[in-house]
Amino acid sequence: MNARVRNRIRQIVGDAHWSHRREDLLLYSYDGMNRRYLPEMVAHPAGAGEVSAILRLANEVPFPVVPRGAGTGLTGGSLPVDGGLVLTTGRMNRILNIDPENSVAWVESGVINGDLQSEAKKHGLFFPPDPASMNFSTLGGNAAENAGGSRAVKYGVTRDYVMALEVVMPTGEIIHTGSAAIKSVTGYDLTRLIVGSEGTLGFITRLLLRLIPIPEAVRTMLAGFTDIGRAADAVASIMSSRVVPSTLEFMDRSAVECVRDYIGFELPSESGALLLIEVDGSPAAVEEDERTIAQACTESGSVFVRSASRQSDRDSLWAARRSISPAIMKIRPLKINEDVAVPRMKIPELVARIEELSRRYRVIIVNFGHAGDGNVHVNFLLDPGDADEVSRAHAAVEELFQVVVSLGGTLSGEHGIGIAKAPYLDIELEGTAIEVMRRIKRALDPNNILNPHKTFDYDRSSVARELRA
Amino acid sequence: MNARVRNRIRQIVGDAHWSHRREDLLLYSYDGMNRRYLPEMVAHPAGAGEVSAILRLANEVPFPVVPRGAGTGLTGGSLPVDGGLVLTTGRMNRILNIDPENSVAWVESGVINGDLQSEAKKHGLFFPPDPASMNFSTLGGNAAENAGGSRAVKYGVTRDYVMALEVVMPTGEIIHTGSAAIKSVTGYDLTRLIVGSEGTLGFITRLLLRLIPIPEAVRTMLAGFTDIGRAADAVASIMSSRVVPSTLEFMDRSAVECVRDYIGFELPSESGALLLIEVDGSPAAVEEDERTIAQACTESGSVFVRSASRQSDRDSLWAARRSISPAIMKIRPLKINEDVAVPRMKIPELVARIEELSRRYRVIIVNFGHAGDGNVHVNFLLDPGDADEVSRAHAAVEELFQVVVSLGGTLSGEHGIGIAKAPYLDIELEGTAIEVMRRIKRALDPNNILNPHKTFDYDRSSVARELRA
Repeated sequence: MNARVRNRIRQIVGDAHWSHRREDLLLYSYDGMNRRYLPEMVAHPAGAGEVSAILRLANEVPFPVVPRGAGTGLTGGSLPVDGGLVLTTGRMNRILNIDPENSVAWVESGVINGDLQSEAKKHGLFFPPDPASMNFSTLGGNAAENAGGSRAVKYGVTRDYVMALEVVMPTGEIIHTGSAAIKSVTGYDLTRLIVGSEGTLGFITRLLLRLIPIPEAVRTMLAGFTDIGRAADAVASIMSSRVVPSTLEFMDRSAVECVRDYIGFELPSESGALLLIEVDGSPAAVEEDERTIAQACTESGSVFVRSASRQSDRDSLWAARRSISPAIMKIRPLKINEDVAVPRMKIPELVARIEELSRRYRVIIVNFGHAGDGNVHVNFLLDPGDADEVSRAHAAVEELFQVVVSLGGTLSGEHGIGIAKAPYLDIELEGTAIEVMRRIKRALDPNNILNPHKTFDYDRSSVARELRA
Repeated sequence: MNARVRNRIRQIVGDAHWSHRREDLLLYSYDGMNRRYLPEMVAHPAGAGEVSAILRLANEVPFPVVPRGAGTGLTGGSLPVDGGLVLTTGRMNRILNIDPENSVAWVESGVINGDLQSEAKKHGLFFPPDPASMNFSTLGGNAAENAGGSRAVKYGVTRDYVMALEVVMPTGEIIHTGSAAIKSVTGYDLTRLIVGSEGTLGFITRLLLRLIPIPEAVRTMLAGFTDIGRAADAVASIMSSRVVPSTLEFMDRSAVECVRDYIGFELPSESGALLLIEVDGSPAAVEEDERTIAQACTESGSVFVRSASRQSDRDSLWAARRSISPAIMKIRPLKINEDVAVPRMKIPELVARIEELSRRYRVIIVNFGHAGDGNVHVNFLLDPGDADEVSRAHAAVEELFQVVVSLGGTLSGEHGIGIAKAPYLDIELEGTAIEVMRRIKRALDPNNILNPHKTFDYDRSSVARELRA
């Protein structure tokens, strides 16, 4: 990216909206994953027209272009691995229209998830996807990563709420995918091809999102069990009842030990696993669901069940879940968080296998996550100064992926592949399936301009190279 | 397809499972759309291995291969437009496994939707997609067309229930897409690219489907209104309440006139529009929802509201909806059924525009469909012997598509594009979006072997050619 190229980009986005000063570039060199790659330039386009002009230029020169929302991703999806240009959605931050009659919203891709929630709430509506980053992360980033969240067990993930997109293709064409009609089968489903493609197949500039009415009533419950097996029995019993909880989170023994001192009440000492459960709906339905769930927990041998309907009481039950992250950081300063997912009835087996990995590799592992959809956050806790521990942890991660796949599961439930898991992709996917994905990438991005190395182009030799560097 | 090629196919599928006798081929020359194309050969492979061998051969020779389920599709998706080989899923009709603990089922693609429903019911589960053809159509066909149905307003469409696929690519590779974990973001979403691609991007051989618990209680309601505007007010009021009906069907004035003599009770004479509404869930929730809906209808000026909870009473309300098709066939022997969709609040405007088209083109048009998701079945009733009427109807159809798109809608809500709507694709999609779809098709099917001419390769000149022939 020489001066001539930088100049052309400056002309496209305007003088105030680009930089190649090192102190600015540093801000765009990292995301929620713990690695740094310095871009050569950063630019903040105003919309699809400018993104299109830049992508055409990038194909001509060529140079890599890396889309970036708020940079909260956990798998390195917005890292400029090969340098080049970081292109942000920072200026595309307008909620264009909320249409309460059709329960939809048009937004630009740089709008913060939480900002849409606040606006939608004024119309009695909400946007169900609620990644933990929702107060910082952008809707464009949520869509690019197909973000999940705690409510996914009832409401699904980002993919289920994106109706239509304005996208700039890697070669610069602006296209519109999907429809404002809820049902549409016209042509290939480009919307869902772009959603979850981690910015490798297109740069999202606008989204049409489906909103739904805020439920009238919510009930939160915390239930303790002696062990994860009994908690899993309760999960099975709840999920085979006709109740669909809006949240069904679990914590294993090590997670319970972490939070014991942080929550506002005395946990019975025999609590070796916790379930945090929420139901929402009409007041009558919520009361009925609460009874069904309490009974399911009791019949599965729960140690205790607490229930709350008022916000302040609900917050105190959520305190257990929310205190995990700060609590575990006191054990070790470095955390590798893998968000594997398995068929939900395989969670006890997965947790048992993880306990065995923890013993064999001598690494502290804390498990919690979304029991309702089998999505487990496996946290490896490390001292970054202890090279041997770090190396044992990496070996344990690789074996974890093998275990997960042998249980019918997946490397990532909601965080994406990025560069963090790309080296392990072939543990889950056959070579033929990866080759089909590569053919699509090559067909839409023949010069490999848009977000190179993400998803399936960052192999184990790249990691080895990087560790040497 | 000479004798040598036929012989190789015979060797792949076995002697008993192919034919090129004219009387057999005739059976595979038509589907739910009113056109005929004779294939050169039909074969019934046992599974992915045989499909793969045939597709490799087809690329070598080459000859076109047209996948076929039960042939109930309404847009010609299984028609062998260029002759070649029809490849059926007739022998892939096993339900491989129903796993009630994880609420999933593995099925072969030739399993009838209704057969899965019967088996799932034994475990208290059901498969939500319910196209009108469900007692005949296959799950592979449902997935290829991304079929909808009456329950889509609450439960979504086929796409929302396909978790994983075994697919033979057009070039013969067998791949596995998706995951048995409910949440998975590993790699591109090939599952949803294949679902709805109308057999042009892959031949589906097995599907992993998500099932959900059968609701405890169902309540059916029929409400009459003086006109479609008031019915639309009721729809708006219901959808903006927190009630999500499991069915929300409407009939316009012409449809009401058709069914008046067929239903088991006297419709008040001022009924110019009907809504058929169902809610399901726990008994308490259903009762509450019924009250909310009755109130919404009354406040919107309904002429009458009837409600039923027993199956026999519910059937008598459904009789109104079910009698439309036989009733309208008495008006004219030929029906062109277009399943356009618009944002749901645009239905009254769409119906008004259709009334205007009906007057201007002098064609009888009857409208009914899924009000909850804006999916309207627009039925043009014709005498096939009246060439002028047929030609006026075709002109009206084209203008209908233009109206629908101007209202933010789509050519097809659930029937697919096939060859029936392919000539009109550019009314809805920009050239750049169509070109992106073509690039994907070319990347995955470089020799254009699998189901050629479907979705976007059947233009207006093909129709003109065909009308001349």
